[in-house]
Amino acid sequence: MSVVASEKKDFDPLASLRTLLHQDLKGVDQIIDCNLDSSISLIPTIGRHLIYAGGKRLRPLLTIASYRLFEDSGDGAIGLAAAVEFIHTATLLHDDVIDESKLRRGLPTANDVWGNQASVLVGDFLFARSFQLMIESNNSDVLKILAAAAACISEGEVLQLSLCHNLDVKVEDSLRVIEAKTATLFAAACQVGALMANQTAHASALRDYGQNLGMAFQIVDDILDYCANASRLGKDVGDDFREGKITLPVILAYPHCQDDEKEFLRKTLIDHHQTPNDLLRALEILHKRQGFTKAYDLAATYSEKARQALGPLPAHPIKDLLNGLIDHSLQRGC
Amino acid sequence: MSVVASEKKDFDPLASLRTLLHQDLKGVDQIIDCNLDSSISLIPTIGRHLIYAGGKRLRPLLTIASYRLFEDSGDGAIGLAAAVEFIHTATLLHDDVIDESKLRRGLPTANDVWGNQASVLVGDFLFARSFQLMIESNNSDVLKILAAAAACISEGEVLQLSLCHNLDVKVEDSLRVIEAKTATLFAAACQVGALMANQTAHASALRDYGQNLGMAFQIVDDILDYCANASRLGKDVGDDFREGKITLPVILAYPHCQDDEKEFLRKTLIDHHQTPNDLLRALEILHKRQGFTKAYDLAATYSEKARQALGPLPAHPIKDLLNGLIDHSLQRGC
Repeated sequence: MSVVASEKKDFDPLASLRTLLHQDLKGVDQIIDCNLDSSISLIPTIGRHLIYAGGKRLRPLLTIASYRLFEDSGDGAIGLAAAVEFIHTATLLHDDVIDESKLRRGLPTANDVWGNQASVLVGDFLFARSFQLMIESNNSDVLKILAAAAACISEGEVLQLSLCHNLDVKVEDSLRVIEAKTATLFAAACQVGALMANQTAHASALRDYGQNLGMAFQIVDDILDYCANASRLGKDVGDDFREGKITLPVILAYPHCQDDEKEFLRKTLIDHHQTPNDLLRALEILHKRQGFTKAYDLAATYSEKARQALGPLPAHPIKDLLNGLIDHSLQRGC
Repeated sequence: MSVVASEKKDFDPLASLRTLLHQDLKGVDQIIDCNLDSSISLIPTIGRHLIYAGGKRLRPLLTIASYRLFEDSGDGAIGLAAAVEFIHTATLLHDDVIDESKLRRGLPTANDVWGNQASVLVGDFLFARSFQLMIESNNSDVLKILAAAAACISEGEVLQLSLCHNLDVKVEDSLRVIEAKTATLFAAACQVGALMANQTAHASALRDYGQNLGMAFQIVDDILDYCANASRLGKDVGDDFREGKITLPVILAYPHCQDDEKEFLRKTLIDHHQTPNDLLRALEILHKRQGFTKAYDLAATYSEKARQALGPLPAHPIKDLLNGLIDHSLQRGC
């Protein structure tokens, strides 16, 4: 590896953003902690289990960054950043119940430790708390954007559920799921940060940035679910395969598979007949039929759109880091 | 039965309220229908399955009644009434998943027909939609009250979950569950209706009314779960018993049971060892040890408080019907 490549690899815009905005993030953590409180002790126990399990705080970071691009003082976005993280965490809790996942962020999932019932209910609680937090913004545009994002996320989850027994899913349907489940909250997180700084025009640009960053991020996540090593991803590699999730790499590879490969994917992903070595064979097929390459190319297209969206924003160190985040999302695992 | 008693029995204040406010209720149904819409067809399918399965619309009716007590024109409470029904429906969807219920409002539950995953996700969607609806009220007090009620409901559900393997539950803990799960939304439904008519002082009185009506209503519901006939209740009689739910009649009877009766309740409700005739024996024990009588007395106390709360409100036909609703809640099954 050349020195230049090594230096490029060592630069971590996410870590830099986190360092630059650490005071705000500390405020977010305080609000999160305070709002996890309940006299029903299982609620903070489960909430903290997930929230303090080393999550990247990417979404609240986007909210704060989008605010700090325009506002040096004030803390108008901190509560909203916490609300965004609560929506995300509620979704994760319900997701893990739906997917029967056992590992999340390197720890056993809440449903695995405390059961599905508690996970569903604590998810509901976090969801309600997120609304309580966003109401404090006293900004009706912000409320509308975040409530619409929350509705959109569950629509995306239901769409994903309805597509889960079908290998002939259209690429556009798969992208719709990614948009609804991930990109919409990224978009909203950015937009509301800028709106709290009263930057209506820039808020639209940042929404576009978040939307496209979210698309790229999730597509790469779906690739990593097959390719990363577990310690890096913080969850089980091959989860999507084992759960029979028909993600983008599969959808892009499938039409180009030979009959025996199609049969293998049907058997393992649709009929759920899997043996321990099947993940390796799936990896081989998806590589050979360019599922990963094509997914990566799509992610790169969204990344380019994210970059273009940032273009008109005024120069600012945070703008550079948001740009860096695009490359970081693309390069984190491949 | 004397003619007077028969006439009294025939008077149904809920039906009268519904007739009086039918135009508003029609508006609520239109908003509900419109907001169930989604390009993901499973969402309106599941939502309509539950919402049009003959629910009483009691909570939205309380919102509208509390508004119409003060406002003859305008439709300022209709959207909120729909929001309240959405919160309630989301809760029912998740409740049925948690309890593994098979029958609700005389129909198979959504989880029984479409599975737990879809029920959890569509519940999330309805929850998000309820927030979208309430944001349209443009009233920050209303938003705070309903968001707090939603958080409170999930806290109550978690508390109930944590108490479910214990026959020595304190009466006050059981009442706390009832308050959080049912009374808080009744209270909020009433309060926000009056607030939309700009009646801050009366809104507090109506909140008290709703709170106490909700307590009485749920306590009677817990009695009916043992005593009603299925066609009247629209759900399986004995559900709470079969699911091992430790409801108020059990909690009130248990300390007065003889050892063999305690052993029977432990075996059936905690260890879940039940035979088909056990429900009858449980009924016998709860009757003998006055679980139902004592629960009913508690319900009557809350009813009296609800009546007192209505006292200071100005005379109005709707006030009389709200008063009638108190008796109706008490008398509907016993």
